[in-house]
Amino acid sequence: MFSAFAELLPDLTELYQNLHRHPELSFEENRTAAELGHHLRDLGYEVTTGVGRTGVVGVLRNGDGPTVMLRADMDALPVTERTGLPYASNRPGVMHACGHDLHCAWLVGAAALLAHGADQWAGTVLLVLQPAEETGGGAEAMVDDGLYERFGRPTVAFGQHVGPAPAGRVLSRPGLMMAASDSLQVRLFGRGGHGAKPESTVDPIVMAAATVLRLQTIVSREIPATDTAVVTVGALHAGTKENIIPDDAELKLSVRTFEPRVRERVLGAITRIVHAEAAAAGAPKPPEVEIMRAFEPVVNDEAATSRVSDAFIAHFGSDRVAGTEPQTGSEDFGVYGARGRFPSVFWFVGGSDPEAYEQAERAGRVDRDIPSNHSPYFAPVLETTLSTGVETLVTAAMAWLTASGSADPQTG
Amino acid sequence: MFSAFAELLPDLTELYQNLHRHPELSFEENRTAAELGHHLRDLGYEVTTGVGRTGVVGVLRNGDGPTVMLRADMDALPVTERTGLPYASNRPGVMHACGHDLHCAWLVGAAALLAHGADQWAGTVLLVLQPAEETGGGAEAMVDDGLYERFGRPTVAFGQHVGPAPAGRVLSRPGLMMAASDSLQVRLFGRGGHGAKPESTVDPIVMAAATVLRLQTIVSREIPATDTAVVTVGALHAGTKENIIPDDAELKLSVRTFEPRVRERVLGAITRIVHAEAAAAGAPKPPEVEIMRAFEPVVNDEAATSRVSDAFIAHFGSDRVAGTEPQTGSEDFGVYGARGRFPSVFWFVGGSDPEAYEQAERAGRVDRDIPSNHSPYFAPVLETTLSTGVETLVTAAMAWLTASGSADPQTG
Amino acid sequence: MFSAFAELLPDLTELYQNLHRHPELSFEENRTAAELGHHLRDLGYEVTTGVGRTGVVGVLRNGDGPTVMLRADMDALPVTERTGLPYASNRPGVMHACGHDLHCAWLVGAAALLAHGADQWAGTVLLVLQPAEETGGGAEAMVDDGLYERFGRPTVAFGQHVGPAPAGRVLSRPGLMMAASDSLQVRLFGRGGHGAKPESTVDPIVMAAATVLRLQTIVSREIPATDTAVVTVGALHAGTKENIIPDDAELKLSVRTFEPRVRERVLGAITRIVHAEAAAAGAPKPPEVEIMRAFEPVVNDEAATSRVSDAFIAHFGSDRVAGTEPQTGSEDFGVYGARGRFPSVFWFVGGSDPEAYEQAERAGRVDRDIPSNHSPYFAPVLETTLSTGVETLVTAAMAWLTASGSADPQTG
Amino acid sequence: MFSAFAELLPDLTELYQNLHRHPELSFEENRTAAELGHHLRDLGYEVTTGVGRTGVVGVLRNGDGPTVMLRADMDALPVTERTGLPYASNRPGVMHACGHDLHCAWLVGAAALLAHGADQWAGTVLLVLQPAEETGGGAEAMVDDGLYERFGRPTVAFGQHVGPAPAGRVLSRPGLMMAASDSLQVRLFGRGGHGAKPESTVDPIVMAAATVLRLQTIVSREIPATDTAVVTVGALHAGTKENIIPDDAELKLSVRTFEPRVRERVLGAITRIVHAEAAAAGAPKPPEVEIMRAFEPVVNDEAATSRVSDAFIAHFGSDRVAGTEPQTGSEDFGVYGARGRFPSVFWFVGGSDPEAYEQAERAGRVDRDIPSNHSPYFAPVLETTLSTGVETLVTAAMAWLTASGSADPQTG
Repeated sequence: MFSAFAELLPDLTELYQNLHRHPELSFEENRTAAELGHHLRDLGYEVTTGVGRTGVVGVLRNGDGPTVMLRADMDALPVTERTGLPYASNRPGVMHACGHDLHCAWLVGAAALLAHGADQWAGTVLLVLQPAEETGGGAEAMVDDGLYERFGRPTVAFGQHVGPAPAGRVLSRPGLMMAASDSLQVRLFGRGGHGAKPESTVDPIVMAAATVLRLQTIVSREIPATDTAVVTVGALHAGTKENIIPDDAELKLSVRTFEPRVRERVLGAITRIVHAEAAAAGAPKPPEVEIMRAFEPVVNDEAATSRVSDAFIAHFGSDRVAGTEPQTGSEDFGVYGARGRFPSVFWFVGGSDPEAYEQAERAGRVDRDIPSNHSPYFAPVLETTLSTGVETLVTAAMAWLTASGSADPQTG
Repeated sequence: MFSAFAELLPDLTELYQNLHRHPELSFEENRTAAELGHHLRDLGYEVTTGVGRTGVVGVLRNGDGPTVMLRADMDALPVTERTGLPYASNRPGVMHACGHDLHCAWLVGAAALLAHGADQWAGTVLLVLQPAEETGGGAEAMVDDGLYERFGRPTVAFGQHVGPAPAGRVLSRPGLMMAASDSLQVRLFGRGGHGAKPESTVDPIVMAAATVLRLQTIVSREIPATDTAVVTVGALHAGTKENIIPDDAELKLSVRTFEPRVRERVLGAITRIVHAEAAAAGAPKPPEVEIMRAFEPVVNDEAATSRVSDAFIAHFGSDRVAGTEPQTGSEDFGVYGARGRFPSVFWFVGGSDPEAYEQAERAGRVDRDIPSNHSPYFAPVLETTLSTGVETLVTAAMAWLTASGSADPQTG
Repeated sequence: MFSAFAELLPDLTELYQNLHRHPELSFEENRTAAELGHHLRDLGYEVTTGVGRTGVVGVLRNGDGPTVMLRADMDALPVTERTGLPYASNRPGVMHACGHDLHCAWLVGAAALLAHGADQWAGTVLLVLQPAEETGGGAEAMVDDGLYERFGRPTVAFGQHVGPAPAGRVLSRPGLMMAASDSLQVRLFGRGGHGAKPESTVDPIVMAAATVLRLQTIVSREIPATDTAVVTVGALHAGTKENIIPDDAELKLSVRTFEPRVRERVLGAITRIVHAEAAAAGAPKPPEVEIMRAFEPVVNDEAATSRVSDAFIAHFGSDRVAGTEPQTGSEDFGVYGARGRFPSVFWFVGGSDPEAYEQAERAGRVDRDIPSNHSPYFAPVLETTLSTGVETLVTAAMAWLTASGSADPQTG
Repeated sequence: MFSAFAELLPDLTELYQNLHRHPELSFEENRTAAELGHHLRDLGYEVTTGVGRTGVVGVLRNGDGPTVMLRADMDALPVTERTGLPYASNRPGVMHACGHDLHCAWLVGAAALLAHGADQWAGTVLLVLQPAEETGGGAEAMVDDGLYERFGRPTVAFGQHVGPAPAGRVLSRPGLMMAASDSLQVRLFGRGGHGAKPESTVDPIVMAAATVLRLQTIVSREIPATDTAVVTVGALHAGTKENIIPDDAELKLSVRTFEPRVRERVLGAITRIVHAEAAAAGAPKPPEVEIMRAFEPVVNDEAATSRVSDAFIAHFGSDRVAGTEPQTGSEDFGVYGARGRFPSVFWFVGGSDPEAYEQAERAGRVDRDIPSNHSPYFAPVLETTLSTGVETLVTAAMAWLTASGSADPQTG
């Protein structure tokens, strides 16, 4: 099954670099979708584009058997690339800083191996290339657009993400895998005026600054240290000129939690603090706090995860397969299984240079020395990462497609 | 001299509303300059455009005598108008929120009266319509472009500004009139990354928030309460998405002071605080603090101010002419006299509805109830304000143009 | 063994209320030590006082067999009691707000049962009543004063703490049980002066406020949300009068961590922030940051914990014995095993009214509705808590004292 | 009149150093009052102690004429002296850091000269040595205790204060001389608990820190930069141990303003901010904000000030007599004239080494290099300061006591 990979590698590398060079933001993945659709059609997949706006679906029916769904996400981020790579983004302000280009290349690689080796398995492979994972909404858009009704309900679904671990390594866990995520937008209302006359204004920038600092106390004071919560203000915008005090300020917040009771307490504290800080400033009207989107946690099915892990260990050897703590990152992958009521499994594939990673780990500096996803310096090492992510998809898929009785989703 | 004004009023009002509807930002005052040049030419002035990029100069030579310079500024502000006026700005995000449109209309009105009444005076009237007062640089650009060499060095120069006082009122003072102003840009450097993994980043938004709050202590703790200083953060921008911690944050600061020792202490404290707050955050590199521009204070020549005040009282009556404290606002009008070494006088013309103003004053709520310059609600009452600002210019000019021996700048 | 307990209860209750009424601070437990020594002597124990300043040791030798050490701590806290109990503290500003009075009563109760039932076991019981657990130093003082040399090295040691769980419940875990704890003192140096002239001072209170707020960012931004760290400023003192700006400010910090790498990062961040905030204020000299004391984490021996748990389940039934997450609280109990190189086990005994606790738990309000240790409202329910903590000590001790071959510490 | 001063100097110096060595806090000036009463009796004054608790009154009746009241204050401050002077305070934690010891020595010196030169004037000298100026209440206590009824209503009253100006210099102004002062106490309520479990508490120290920082924005944002306001948090106390989160925090604030509308806005903003910051923290109950005492501004009578200034210039020469801006410091001296409805004048006497002062002034570092009142390093230079403050009192008194018709308080 995997012997064909060496032949594939040059094309896959080119595809990856092509995607990396032309990043597209959420729900604007038109070029990406066209490119990927073209590759899948060449491999013999029945391809439908425009599913959930810019999503792509590829289907390969190969006799009776389970339907295995493999999912990749396609969108890039509003980040200006600083890697200096020869194939760096040619669009200032947009970058594949989260590795979704790699996810797409992995999916195409797996699609190729599965197509070439179709005599070794039976069933249906359902490829889902979704838009807008970063902003959320992509998974829901595809399901809402009839993903299961039009292309069949899967027996099991797999998703994977490149991350800061040594290249060649695969990490997963049963149960809670990734955090719930809430995206909030906060508008603070002051009263604008001349920068030399603050007394005739209510300064929304000072209000915003006090709010940002006070929000830090949610995690530091209100949540048990043994629980998990992240409250990040990822964007803060106010004003145009130094000598005009603006009318308002806008904050964008990201919240990550593992448990509903913690989530509830964090969201309550945000609302309380934002309102009180506006009151402290004498704001002319209360702030607006809006939840823009909310991701459920990604929860791996216990039985399916166990079957996937066994297959990974058999394929990669146990030294390349590891457990992991639940991650504060989040994903809309959880939407597929929750909406379709079938088991799903998500895992990470390491993308860091193993030597650099080990050195950073020994120095206790992984957090500081290894560029994380979303960093403008994010750059997975190529060959090992590319091959590992293709092999994981194929290995997991084959654990269902070659098994007798695997059509029973209950044992997924 | 002033009898012709009633006839002028409809045209002036139309001109004002025309300018108000089409605001242009600093050094982009092309339409405004063309419009004004057209009017001045019609009145018989020799007009030159493109002086100091988008500036306009109008000259009327009328026999021997002093050269009186009258100056108005033309640029608008990046503010979205919220007045709801029928002649409100038709450009979202740009507004004549500081009344420079009125300044221009005043100048054209005065130019008309002086031209119509040329038999009553002798000398030269030099009209200076400058660009880019808001961002600074306009006055300097015109002087650098040969204003005095090409059009003659003035005996005296006058400038005026509409402000929050009852319409019909004129306010001035000898000596220090408006504050020194420094515009600073600060870039704070963090290290970007995933919003769910703040531990692998240095969060520049928290750094910026702590910096903004700590900057408040300069005025509250480091400057004597009996001295005058303003430190405003007028703009703060960082980040694009809630789930990406950005690499850096940008702040724009405006500083107002009356005395060099206070200015020095404020600027020193800003630098100290910005660097220390970056250090507190563990910033990967020190912040950049740059003075973008610095305005000298506007200082009114004592003798010339006294002559102007006498003329104002004679014309308006003493109840409409008032003294004023030095203002924390600032201006590049000071550049003209300082560069050309001639006396100059600057004054304010009230633009607020007198009844509303008085009521706010009685309630101690002027700061809160009367929209200040730069506010999106800034809207001078029209007729009285328009006529007063024309009369002030003509009255001050005539105090020189009709006086014998007034050509001696030393007695300004 | 336990049948004698009912008879004991009135005396034990009286002893507990007596201790509660007369709390004594760390290393001042003179009355407490005398009272306890008296009780133990009456029970036939060989008692030595003044071990490690105010500590008490009781020994009961009962033939060949293992030496089982049971430890309680005796000191109270500088808290003013607000429970309104009839036996509330009669010393304003001092209170048994952490339940050490209960720990002492438990120990005396267990000592009584073991003495009465001496025919049922063989070996030596070593009772250790230590001073100064709250400030740290008590366990070390006793070991340094020759605890093991003078009274024999234990085979195993047990400690227990009352905590916010339903009365009657016992909680423990193998491995990491309680956090490492560091106590820091920070002195911030400003420059004092007149409250009306802040400009001639460097205000240490503003400096302290900025420091406290910025310290919140360590947990909220620098430590992974899936790791555990607490940074508490428990005391802040500066100044005497409103119109004098003081010279300095003093902060007392408590840090809790589970892992050395997290501890190191927290301590580094504290030092960095404290110094930078002093620099931001223009401090005349750098702050002093001193680690007053450091507790190692309490780590339960795996084999010994397993033996204790089995005994607890056999005695209490499995519904009253629970596991627990590692706690952010800390203890110097870890010193005994670490210094003497023998296994030790620590557990919690619930002290809350079960109904109130359950109701709070259902409402997700345990943190808010159940007074925690150190609260001025801390008040364990009496009878069930008293009996459970006596039974745990006896049950654990008997698991060694009645076992053959139990003298081997390796299987402790 | 002044020829006798040289003879007095050694005794006065000894008296001053004696008082400096034995400072006493407000309303505890027992030793000081006894010492001063003794000196005044020796000089022939009729002395009454215990007026307004610890105040002292001395009267010298010398024929018909005006009654001139000279006032000094006696209390010290809770500051630990750090001057290293041979006559430094022998009481740790108490210091004459505001120079009231000097004020007392001045008064005794003036009393001596006036007694010795009684043949040169007619009228009555009323010496008022008041307690508790620092905490307020001393002036009111004496007036309430029948000062005017028992000892006669003055024609005019004089007060003086040593301050940071070159020794030998005298400064005053007609009208507003010293600020209104409000002393506030703020109690913030949290909910205490264990330092390792902040989630079960509401941390009042973080609440206090946020409050202190936010209070800075009153002066920096809400008060016009050309107005005068000071908001100082002079004391902040919370907590006892690092591992207990306390129940509450206490802040002491001093507010200085020149104008009622500014005072009103500052006090309103304090209340707003304190309440909102408590709300931001989720405080279990609202904070308490209490005005402990309020001083009126000190306003110098215009005519009396003019007469005093003329007398000073005649005596000292015009180079030693200067005007001054209104000061942010405050005083209860204003109580005397306001309550008794007679004119009063207050002035400053420089106490700094002239060379050091001039050097600091040239470097723009007076605020930083010259220890201000209330500093633990406050130390007036002795001889010149001592003689100047005696001469000012005598000179001002003689301007009334030697004048005909001066008994008319209306022309005071």
